[in-house]
Amino acid sequence: MEAKVGIVMGSDSDLGVMEETAKVLKKYNIPFEMTVASAHRSPKRAGEFASTAKNRGIKVIIAGAGHAAHLAGAMAAYTTLPIIGVPIDSSAFQGLDALLATVQMPPGVPVATVAVGKPGARNAGILAVQMLALSDPVLADKLEENKVEMAAKVEEKAKKVEAYQ
Amino acid sequence: MEAKVGIVMGSDSDLGVMEETAKVLKKYNIPFEMTVASAHRSPKRAGEFASTAKNRGIKVIIAGAGHAAHLAGAMAAYTTLPIIGVPIDSSAFQGLDALLATVQMPPGVPVATVAVGKPGARNAGILAVQMLALSDPVLADKLEENKVEMAAKVEEKAKKVEAYQ
Amino acid sequence: MEAKVGIVMGSDSDLGVMEETAKVLKKYNIPFEMTVASAHRSPKRAGEFASTAKNRGIKVIIAGAGHAAHLAGAMAAYTTLPIIGVPIDSSAFQGLDALLATVQMPPGVPVATVAVGKPGARNAGILAVQMLALSDPVLADKLEENKVEMAAKVEEKAKKVEAYQ
Amino acid sequence: MEAKVGIVMGSDSDLGVMEETAKVLKKYNIPFEMTVASAHRSPKRAGEFASTAKNRGIKVIIAGAGHAAHLAGAMAAYTTLPIIGVPIDSSAFQGLDALLATVQMPPGVPVATVAVGKPGARNAGILAVQMLALSDPVLADKLEENKVEMAAKVEEKAKKVEAYQ
Amino acid sequence: MEAKVGIVMGSDSDLGVMEETAKVLKKYNIPFEMTVASAHRSPKRAGEFASTAKNRGIKVIIAGAGHAAHLAGAMAAYTTLPIIGVPIDSSAFQGLDALLATVQMPPGVPVATVAVGKPGARNAGILAVQMLALSDPVLADKLEENKVEMAAKVEEKAKKVEAYQ
Amino acid sequence: MEAKVGIVMGSDSDLGVMEETAKVLKKYNIPFEMTVASAHRSPKRAGEFASTAKNRGIKVIIAGAGHAAHLAGAMAAYTTLPIIGVPIDSSAFQGLDALLATVQMPPGVPVATVAVGKPGARNAGILAVQMLALSDPVLADKLEENKVEMAAKVEEKAKKVEAYQ
Amino acid sequence: MEAKVGIVMGSDSDLGVMEETAKVLKKYNIPFEMTVASAHRSPKRAGEFASTAKNRGIKVIIAGAGHAAHLAGAMAAYTTLPIIGVPIDSSAFQGLDALLATVQMPPGVPVATVAVGKPGARNAGILAVQMLALSDPVLADKLEENKVEMAAKVEEKAKKVEAYQ
Amino acid sequence: MEAKVGIVMGSDSDLGVMEETAKVLKKYNIPFEMTVASAHRSPKRAGEFASTAKNRGIKVIIAGAGHAAHLAGAMAAYTTLPIIGVPIDSSAFQGLDALLATVQMPPGVPVATVAVGKPGARNAGILAVQMLALSDPVLADKLEENKVEMAAKVEEKAKKVEAYQ
Repeated sequence: MEAKVGIVMGSDSDLGVMEETAKVLKKYNIPFEMTVASAHRSPKRAGEFASTAKNRGIKVIIAGAGHAAHLAGAMAAYTTLPIIGVPIDSSAFQGLDALLATVQMPPGVPVATVAVGKPGARNAGILAVQMLALSDPVLADKLEENKVEMAAKVEEKAKKVEAYQ
Repeated sequence: MEAKVGIVMGSDSDLGVMEETAKVLKKYNIPFEMTVASAHRSPKRAGEFASTAKNRGIKVIIAGAGHAAHLAGAMAAYTTLPIIGVPIDSSAFQGLDALLATVQMPPGVPVATVAVGKPGARNAGILAVQMLALSDPVLADKLEENKVEMAAKVEEKAKKVEAYQ
Repeated sequence: MEAKVGIVMGSDSDLGVMEETAKVLKKYNIPFEMTVASAHRSPKRAGEFASTAKNRGIKVIIAGAGHAAHLAGAMAAYTTLPIIGVPIDSSAFQGLDALLATVQMPPGVPVATVAVGKPGARNAGILAVQMLALSDPVLADKLEENKVEMAAKVEEKAKKVEAYQ
Repeated sequence: MEAKVGIVMGSDSDLGVMEETAKVLKKYNIPFEMTVASAHRSPKRAGEFASTAKNRGIKVIIAGAGHAAHLAGAMAAYTTLPIIGVPIDSSAFQGLDALLATVQMPPGVPVATVAVGKPGARNAGILAVQMLALSDPVLADKLEENKVEMAAKVEEKAKKVEAYQ
Repeated sequence: MEAKVGIVMGSDSDLGVMEETAKVLKKYNIPFEMTVASAHRSPKRAGEFASTAKNRGIKVIIAGAGHAAHLAGAMAAYTTLPIIGVPIDSSAFQGLDALLATVQMPPGVPVATVAVGKPGARNAGILAVQMLALSDPVLADKLEENKVEMAAKVEEKAKKVEAYQ
Repeated sequence: MEAKVGIVMGSDSDLGVMEETAKVLKKYNIPFEMTVASAHRSPKRAGEFASTAKNRGIKVIIAGAGHAAHLAGAMAAYTTLPIIGVPIDSSAFQGLDALLATVQMPPGVPVATVAVGKPGARNAGILAVQMLALSDPVLADKLEENKVEMAAKVEEKAKKVEAYQ
Repeated sequence: MEAKVGIVMGSDSDLGVMEETAKVLKKYNIPFEMTVASAHRSPKRAGEFASTAKNRGIKVIIAGAGHAAHLAGAMAAYTTLPIIGVPIDSSAFQGLDALLATVQMPPGVPVATVAVGKPGARNAGILAVQMLALSDPVLADKLEENKVEMAAKVEEKAKKVEAYQ
Repeated sequence: MEAKVGIVMGSDSDLGVMEETAKVLKKYNIPFEMTVASAHRSPKRAGEFASTAKNRGIKVIIAGAGHAAHLAGAMAAYTTLPIIGVPIDSSAFQGLDALLATVQMPPGVPVATVAVGKPGARNAGILAVQMLALSDPVLADKLEENKVEMAAKVEEKAKKVEAYQ
């Protein structure tokens, strides 16, 4: 099935974080492609990934990178598809560099930035589903169901804590 | 015409920043509604704005707030529509508090965060258009045109700088 | 016995920190309830916890959360009881995000914020006791006794260090 | 009438911030005393202010200071009354130094810290009222009324913003 | 005369900072070209500027940008010429975002980063001259002379301060 | 022999850091006393330690503490002896809180602050010796000798590195 | 009269801050010399200032600098006299760079660091006097008197604030 | 063969980081010398290393240091050769102190700063090669080849990630 979401990361060492995104998309049965492209080490590959994405049927691109994390911005430079950026905490600065390099985009070229690391990678997947659901009522219903489940899980956790003596 | 984007801000003092969002939506002829709701001072109003948005025809919510900026997160808690968060630099910490309070959402509840202040407000508008364009080819074309124009403007600016002696 | 303090945390994974609060309240024989509610995953549960607290006899609410820690602020939005916020260092930013998201509340909706992590959780318990002691002279005396004991413990520790060669 | 709240600040130059606290207390008709004491320049005065407060009838102490803001902690060292700390942004670090020096108290000696600067000073006043209201139902009702008014004001502000074209 | 240094900036609004670089190069009679290219708004222009630079005779590229400052990194991605990055403090974060986005490059793609703002822009010029002087003894001598002059100016300034009463 | 330097720390858990200070003083045969006093848990003990120090023959006080590290400032409040502050990285903020709380003293009450943790503790000892050496030529000579030794050790280390292949 | 304190600053533009130090020394009738030397622009001058200071009769060196403030460290490298460092907030980072570059000295080479900017400059003067007073009882008495006066001034300020309605 | 690059580090404990630089230079067959010199513990050795470098045939100096990392700046003070600074994360502040102390150089004395820690050390080597390649076409070709290889490696990594299920 044609991929609707493109996941791209700066290095294969980021896979441990970005597979959280993949898991979410699998859960929602969203076909996706996942690869490596570096804004700095393979700029043409990165540019092509972004500039051909729309024609490949991609609707949303999710880019995860650490350090001076330019990957999401590089995607945004080459396409008008919505780009989601996941800052990864792989440097000495625990992701502050990646967060600022991802979120502080200049006017005209937005990147939808999520939290640093695994929590952000998971949310990137959900955010992509939310975008796709804007024109897919079945997906939208599934999101609603999962929101209800999520609240239910909080109640389960609450019981554990309430049992604490 | 029915609003497709909801812009909400924590206080009317945030209008100076958030009107940048409104300008973008006007440029793209996207009908929008814009109001004030505070996650802390009027939590019910905020919750209702978010939980009724889908039925009102809203597709994307853009929330701008400063300080411990919970407004975008509060929207995300009450709806599965995509939420865009604009951190506003109205406190002593120049927006670092607003940025972290907006972007560092826990897994399950994403907020698409953009840059601090006016650049972010403008990008929030474009990001919303990008989401709507996923199912609106005319809008998608318009985004492409604007991207071309934007690159052209860079060339104009380049001429000014090249003339510098 | 009717609970006088409500302890709420964003996830059961925060229990390792928040049990420090529980220990303090037990030491002072303050009846308390402890549960999980998430400002983002179960906003209604969180809102109800806060808005019904006064009628349940709760005097003080203590909320512990990490990341974009909105839980204490969400409590403060729904009640006029004093709210104590414990920022938890569970993200890549070691609690700086949680601290700013908890303490930087806008005018009108205070959160009494304590230190990040376990030291803060313990102090949250003591601060709650101090508030209750305003109308309970026996409790006030007990706080004084403990303050004297605490100073005495410093002298014990001093002896250990003075013995260092 | 006997003061119930003690406001203390590190220097008279902090009055511009701390009068926000005074205004709140006046609004609620809470008698208060307000003075200057420095943890570093007049430590005995500071210690006496705190250690005699309870006998003077003071229920809550609010301390505002900038730089390495030790004043609130110094109050907490000398009394078991609840202490509210207001970090003031009077140094080159815009209040980050004052925030960390106020909130990061060691276990055993809590300071209820509020936001940096004027928003925090206002909230310090409300927090003090919330503590006093625990044993004063009339005050508790007044807090509820003000919370309703505050939400109403948000609606007024909303109208202004909704009128924006 | 053929340009030996390429100065590129993200926007014409950065000229106020980057003309400090130009002044240094003029002082050393280094022919240079100066233009605008945005890594995000005109990525192809930016890529071409870098990838054709060597053939145009350029030896060193100096890139100045603010916010999520990717321009220097984008240059480095397309050429093996040495790239000097000048972080510009044009955002709410006073250049911390630009500094981290410029300096924290991943292994394989260096950017020689200098200080934030005007002092960095001036040093970027000197650093470029130092690189060119490696194969130009006349230029090397001129750098030595200027170093001597600089020390002499310190002595002049010293006299002013020594005259202070 | 009468102690000339007073080492004080906020808790016996700081001994692992502060024994670095003690080792330096032993090396220089400076008699010292070392104890625990907390600015927050035993303020009177802390105040007395400082205010009686001069009469006990103490010339310099070295205070090490973590979190909202007020101990050095509390010493400085009670004596005109020079106070050296060692910020200890025992909180979630890795010593940034302790550094700012120690160094950002208001005008009139200086604290001579050294680096965070063990390097600072060692330097605190040397700084104290430097102060004592102002009126003790033998000690001054010993400092000079150690400076020469320190440079010699660098040469030894250099040999190791030079042997690296 | 032979200077006992050497004040050195990185540039004459730092005089506005460092004259606060001079004022304190004048008040205490401490003869001092004041000049400019840059660790980077005139390293030999800086090294000579430090290495000859002891023989010139200097007892304490006070060094003020901004940016990557190496001046105090450069002094400490060339002498065993106590060095006081004043970080100056003249860069985009408001003195955080100067503070860290001054205080984070490696083991063996201490710098007694004070607060950023004018408050620190004033405290640098007092700290120098405290060091000199270790062997000068008259100076020690004067420090005590000033400490008493300082506390008295707090009481004056207190009266102003107490008069606030 | 005569060394063309000088690698200097503040302590032998920095070798684990700086050998990344050495590996790069070996790969490119650039003869180099590597030693230890401390700006603070052996300032004369450091000054001599820098001031004699040009006559020894050195073209580029690479300096790695942690804490208040003055080593690169000290090199820059004594020579007009290009200096590359590698901030090392050996303190409690994870390299933020070293980064700011290295990069925030005052006008007139540039340091080409790279990323914190090992990624920066590797890039320092490449940057040095880029400078040498300005007058060495063989070296320039080798850099181009490696850039192509680097992009090829990204494609290998991409295959691994694309195989992820």
